[in-house]
Amino acid sequence: MAQIVAKFGGTSVSDLQRMRDIATTVKSEVEAGNQIVVVVSAMAGITNDLVALAREANPLHDAREYDSIVASGEQVSSGLLSLCLQEAGVSARSWQGWQIPINTDGVHGKARILGIDTEKIIKRLSENQVCVIAGFQGLSPENRITTLGRGGSDTTAVALAAALKADRCDIYTDVDGVYTSDPRIVTSARKLEKITYEEMLEMASLGAKVLQTRSVELAMSHKVPLQVLSSFTGMMGSVLPGTLVVAEEEIVEQEIVSGVTYSRDEAKITLLQVPDRPGVAAAIFGPLSDANVNVDMIVQNISENNNATDLTFTVARGELDKALEVLESCKSELGFLASVPDSSVAKISVVGVGMRSHAGVAKRMFAALAEHNINILVISTSEIKISVLIAEEFTELALRALHSAYGLDKT
Amino acid sequence: MAQIVAKFGGTSVSDLQRMRDIATTVKSEVEAGNQIVVVVSAMAGITNDLVALAREANPLHDAREYDSIVASGEQVSSGLLSLCLQEAGVSARSWQGWQIPINTDGVHGKARILGIDTEKIIKRLSENQVCVIAGFQGLSPENRITTLGRGGSDTTAVALAAALKADRCDIYTDVDGVYTSDPRIVTSARKLEKITYEEMLEMASLGAKVLQTRSVELAMSHKVPLQVLSSFTGMMGSVLPGTLVVAEEEIVEQEIVSGVTYSRDEAKITLLQVPDRPGVAAAIFGPLSDANVNVDMIVQNISENNNATDLTFTVARGELDKALEVLESCKSELGFLASVPDSSVAKISVVGVGMRSHAGVAKRMFAALAEHNINILVISTSEIKISVLIAEEFTELALRALHSAYGLDKT
Repeated sequence: MAQIVAKFGGTSVSDLQRMRDIATTVKSEVEAGNQIVVVVSAMAGITNDLVALAREANPLHDAREYDSIVASGEQVSSGLLSLCLQEAGVSARSWQGWQIPINTDGVHGKARILGIDTEKIIKRLSENQVCVIAGFQGLSPENRITTLGRGGSDTTAVALAAALKADRCDIYTDVDGVYTSDPRIVTSARKLEKITYEEMLEMASLGAKVLQTRSVELAMSHKVPLQVLSSFTGMMGSVLPGTLVVAEEEIVEQEIVSGVTYSRDEAKITLLQVPDRPGVAAAIFGPLSDANVNVDMIVQNISENNNATDLTFTVARGELDKALEVLESCKSELGFLASVPDSSVAKISVVGVGMRSHAGVAKRMFAALAEHNINILVISTSEIKISVLIAEEFTELALRALHSAYGLDKT
Repeated sequence: MAQIVAKFGGTSVSDLQRMRDIATTVKSEVEAGNQIVVVVSAMAGITNDLVALAREANPLHDAREYDSIVASGEQVSSGLLSLCLQEAGVSARSWQGWQIPINTDGVHGKARILGIDTEKIIKRLSENQVCVIAGFQGLSPENRITTLGRGGSDTTAVALAAALKADRCDIYTDVDGVYTSDPRIVTSARKLEKITYEEMLEMASLGAKVLQTRSVELAMSHKVPLQVLSSFTGMMGSVLPGTLVVAEEEIVEQEIVSGVTYSRDEAKITLLQVPDRPGVAAAIFGPLSDANVNVDMIVQNISENNNATDLTFTVARGELDKALEVLESCKSELGFLASVPDSSVAKISVVGVGMRSHAGVAKRMFAALAEHNINILVISTSEIKISVLIAEEFTELALRALHSAYGLDKT
């Protein structure tokens, strides 16, 4: 007998027919003798509709009311899926965040889970009942509904799996696993059988939108074995194997690079002739941070002639205007000559825990890009990834070149 | 300073514009120094949509899941109205049944309120915050969401007013008060300034769908002053006076008859030649009751020739087929000759607490109907009402004749 937490996202519960398919999948797991906890998102589109209503009611909407309104989507889908399971002859009961409870902090709109009381869930599972949990939501210390932020149902699932010490946490999505690169661009991309938490974390934060970053962090720190697989089941409810996200030591034959990712949500700002004195970086990035603009890659060039440097950094494309506004407002104070924006850039990254023990990974990247005449604008590295900023038009070319250069193409 | 519970039904919160109108109404009450508790229904149509989804998911739907799904409608409307109030500059907070809590029994789908913990509400009111309560729902002893049945938000409002000992409970609806008869049929019908609980109760259960019957019972037993008024406000949020529902002693000049009501939701069944022996009534009405068929008016005729009687009674029109099925299944046991159904009947009632002290009310009714050649099929009476069953085609004629006969026409 295994205890499995299975999470189904919005497109997996978009209508009652899809819910009946899930019921079939869950039923086969139950009949195989497993204890099943299901975590559901709201039906596709519902959350967006509710968010739009809340915004229309009050543009500066109160986060407490926003959370209460938006969480109703999961209340409906958890109830409906329970009814579909019952209709399929499976004992099932829905649970809202406040009923379990899933205790969170009071940061409405992006609350963090503090603890889960698993007593009721364990009791129901022992009675062979499927527990259908409304994802994305919890209960604040003030007894109000909180939500965990976009993609929060992944976090609900992983947190439940951790609290229950479940054997596995299956995340059913509209893709059938984690790929070495985006298969829509790199046709030779392969589905990975296994990937480490660290790699998944880098890939999630670098634009592979398979799992919410926080859910991967949580899985890593609690060593919850994650599986990403497709909710589009085949004949007889059979499920294709997906990708397992596991600890590094569980992967015997580690490849040097596991994936090549990209993000077009990038914009570059170059500040010309920034005075070269101590504290100038803080003076620039302080106001941006205060305005909630996240700065990602930073590079500083020395221009020796007049004690001034050029400073280049990247922000999310949607925050470019705000960033420029902030910079302009303190231009005289900072003393730079001009700000030069460029939103036609993309970030390409190679990710792999194998980098730690293998030299020459960066060299191979730069060589492959040079071979295709792709100019590198900014470079940043971490222990298990190398990212470069390039002109956006070369995105596809760079992805395919790197995928091939690291031997990731399927044979 | 007055403490007022104001309930707004589904058509009053059908969209954000209507909610903003409510916010204006509530704001003027708050600015007048009053403490306001608002009870809201789901946005018009939402409850029906959710019910349809639940039924499609599982025709024999589990009432616990049904309640959880359906109650989400009030969760959304209470949140949105709170946002509209905040947008209008009024401090407001939404409250779900489980947050207060409004404790109910465990009869899902038609739960009864057992008690309301008013502590949090009183605290917020004292801080000049408007409390926006999700109507129609409560919390079962098993910590699950219950619903109070159709129209249950009226009951939520009255129960809150009783628990808070509020000065008034205002029920905003799409009519502007209680009329002496249906103004769509009787153009001379007048809006009543005041009506007693007992009369309202009879009129509610007789088809004047202004208030849920249970909410009137509750108001009567706790002496909550009720006001029925229109949510369609005039210029500057001004509200037209509605109808006050109060105790009998608060009405100085009591009219003999307050209203003439009708119901077309009636069907008549006549059982021919029912054996005239003790226990036969129980033998007939027992199985009907077991099948949840409510029997309303009953009349028994003696047919002396063969120790058998004809028995006539009425049921709701939608339950006629079920009733006939039940009767047919025990026909041989009961020994009647045949069942004769008739669904082209209507019930007309005159209601008034003044009947208690005035003779001749029935006589005037029968005379007025006779004058218009309307045949009476069945008669039933209570202390403050007289009902007759007539052929449905005479409904409008009978209503107008009686309205005029009791001097109710507006002058």
